[in-house]
Amino acid sequence: MRRAGTNLPKVGRYNQAVVLEQIQRAGGISRLEIAQHTGLTPQTVSGIVRRLIDDGTVREDGASRVSSAGKPRVTLRINADAGSAVGLHFDPAELTCVVVDLLGAALVTKRIPTPAGADPVEVVAAMAGLVEDVLGQAAVPRERVLGLGLASPGPIDQERGMVVKPPKLAHWDHIPVKRMLSEATGLPVILDNDSTAAAVGERWAGAGRGVVNFAYFFFGTGIGGGLVLNQQVYRGGSFNAAEFGHMSVQPDGLECYCGNRGCLETLVSPAAIIAETHRRLSAGAPGALAERFRADPVSIDNVAIRDAAAAGDPLATGVLEQAAQHVATAVVNVVSVTDVDLVVLGGHGIEHVEKLYVEAAQRAVATRVMSRHIRVVDVVLSPLGADAAVVGGASLVLHTTYSPRLSELLSD
Amino acid sequence: MRRAGTNLPKVGRYNQAVVLEQIQRAGGISRLEIAQHTGLTPQTVSGIVRRLIDDGTVREDGASRVSSAGKPRVTLRINADAGSAVGLHFDPAELTCVVVDLLGAALVTKRIPTPAGADPVEVVAAMAGLVEDVLGQAAVPRERVLGLGLASPGPIDQERGMVVKPPKLAHWDHIPVKRMLSEATGLPVILDNDSTAAAVGERWAGAGRGVVNFAYFFFGTGIGGGLVLNQQVYRGGSFNAAEFGHMSVQPDGLECYCGNRGCLETLVSPAAIIAETHRRLSAGAPGALAERFRADPVSIDNVAIRDAAAAGDPLATGVLEQAAQHVATAVVNVVSVTDVDLVVLGGHGIEHVEKLYVEAAQRAVATRVMSRHIRVVDVVLSPLGADAAVVGGASLVLHTTYSPRLSELLSD
Repeated sequence: MRRAGTNLPKVGRYNQAVVLEQIQRAGGISRLEIAQHTGLTPQTVSGIVRRLIDDGTVREDGASRVSSAGKPRVTLRINADAGSAVGLHFDPAELTCVVVDLLGAALVTKRIPTPAGADPVEVVAAMAGLVEDVLGQAAVPRERVLGLGLASPGPIDQERGMVVKPPKLAHWDHIPVKRMLSEATGLPVILDNDSTAAAVGERWAGAGRGVVNFAYFFFGTGIGGGLVLNQQVYRGGSFNAAEFGHMSVQPDGLECYCGNRGCLETLVSPAAIIAETHRRLSAGAPGALAERFRADPVSIDNVAIRDAAAAGDPLATGVLEQAAQHVATAVVNVVSVTDVDLVVLGGHGIEHVEKLYVEAAQRAVATRVMSRHIRVVDVVLSPLGADAAVVGGASLVLHTTYSPRLSELLSD
Repeated sequence: MRRAGTNLPKVGRYNQAVVLEQIQRAGGISRLEIAQHTGLTPQTVSGIVRRLIDDGTVREDGASRVSSAGKPRVTLRINADAGSAVGLHFDPAELTCVVVDLLGAALVTKRIPTPAGADPVEVVAAMAGLVEDVLGQAAVPRERVLGLGLASPGPIDQERGMVVKPPKLAHWDHIPVKRMLSEATGLPVILDNDSTAAAVGERWAGAGRGVVNFAYFFFGTGIGGGLVLNQQVYRGGSFNAAEFGHMSVQPDGLECYCGNRGCLETLVSPAAIIAETHRRLSAGAPGALAERFRADPVSIDNVAIRDAAAAGDPLATGVLEQAAQHVATAVVNVVSVTDVDLVVLGGHGIEHVEKLYVEAAQRAVATRVMSRHIRVVDVVLSPLGADAAVVGGASLVLHTTYSPRLSELLSD
């Protein structure tokens, strides 16, 4: 096993990122407060801040506060206009693009359908057109764009910047999308899978801000996840950590396309929920949903089921409560393995019935987790909702700029 | 969120640990090779090595090798006699103690029964007597003992050095065993839970040497685990990560004492295996084990079942294969969450039937894990077996001495 030592230039870059992170998080902060929060000497902080002001990333606020000791303290803020980042979410059905400023605030968001057939060349051309369009609307000078973060269905090969055969994208077999998109847009591209990107979005602009360890469950067409452990995105040995959708929660259950049985995804994906609802309706369950089913079976899709549950329909509620129980079991298992401080649930797959899922998971961690006597883990709904992945794409870029990465401290 | 910057003294300590780790792992290594492996400058390496030779931790080997370029290279080795560490495993039934040298080689190992009733004061007195006894037999000068690592049933409160109500130790309710044992032995004590200690043992002296990410499953009276992620022991937010025994692998299964249902432990612990065997025997299953059962039901304990399975008895084999399937499901789930490079199975609970468990888990990760097309995770048997926890106890001490810890680089 090799293990890198560290040296002064690496330490300098790391400490600069530590300072930048403090300023970004605090909203407004003085040099002395930064020194107190980081343990760096005031001299080191001053030197770093001077460089950040010189390059335009940080600005001094005109009004200086007076400290308790009577000395004026100049407030430092991120210069939001000094740069921007583009996020792009590649969903098999839809492309979403956002431009954010340096503080992560969305300037313009736009959605277009993914080209039918999802041919890689056509998709990349559509992506580039969408980026151009959104950057034009946001009127951001091209030279201030830090980069483009692409949130794509996985698995991806991050080293080679490739999308590797996602189950729902027939033509995407080892497609070098990072290079293609960079050539088409002229922007540096960061590629990550959609769930990891969404977790980075949560860490940056959502429920995970300032949380040391958290797990993010993403409910979309499939079920994915992301892990932040010890303040770092944890990716695993093959960049495939946090495959929460393919944990088996019913080992004698249905076979999943992944090869496993009773995967969470086979039980709570939109397709699984429709199948279970149709099964119960065919068995003759009564109620409003049943009447609609008899009139037009195809109309009972996932949105109809969630709307019915939100309106109190007992059959739809029963189906979703069963799904929520499976999610709760998966949450308990993830907490038992990772002992995270927080679990975040998000994604468009739980829209309108968020409460049902969140409360089932809250009850489960409060009653079924071994370490609950020491502390009960929080379970919350993502404030980013269906936008987590696209915000996550932009956050990948900001994350690369701001976040102090130990890997940098230790890289060759 | 606070985040510490770093500075020169911390960097110096970290780099010293990096160099020491290289020498420890390599067996014999030159200064130049250390520089190549760590990215540190030859000057930095020379300075650190000089200090390590001065304090006696490292020695130069008499015979110097000649490099390909024709220059002589002095081989550096850990001075095994320069220090030693004591490991102590506190099992409700048995206390085991080992003294190891600086290279981790066991000098003396001894076991005694845990005092009946397991009263904390009596247990600590028995521990101290055992440590004294073993150190005497090893004839190690007291001033060279680096410390004592205690592997205890969890949960533990590491900050306060307490054992917090382990389910199988009635009198151990917030017992400050770290302080008590330190006072009784005069040695600095490191306390950790038995599974984490065993994982550290695997990392140090077992199957996990040099592996970046691995999960360790411990089969004892209960089922525990440990995680090494990014070369660091991962403990989680409340020091309760890797509770593999309390993952639910049969959500509609029996209630566990932890509050959850169908926990791995309820299905594969020694007690569960005996219960399942008795159930099948009472239902009239044929075979040699059944005859013995009719003659003397109580004799059908866990060892008898494992011996029968090892000898080919179909009933015992069936029971254990079912248990191994549950373990395989838990392994798949842990790999799906953590994407580790290696899974290690160990502990006295699988003695004599190791192959059955390891092979079931190997088949499962090769066929049921989503990322298997990218790489198939290794599953191996622990080479430390039932001694993992006590070797782990001693390893905790060596780990503190040797292992480059990022936390040190970033601590205040």
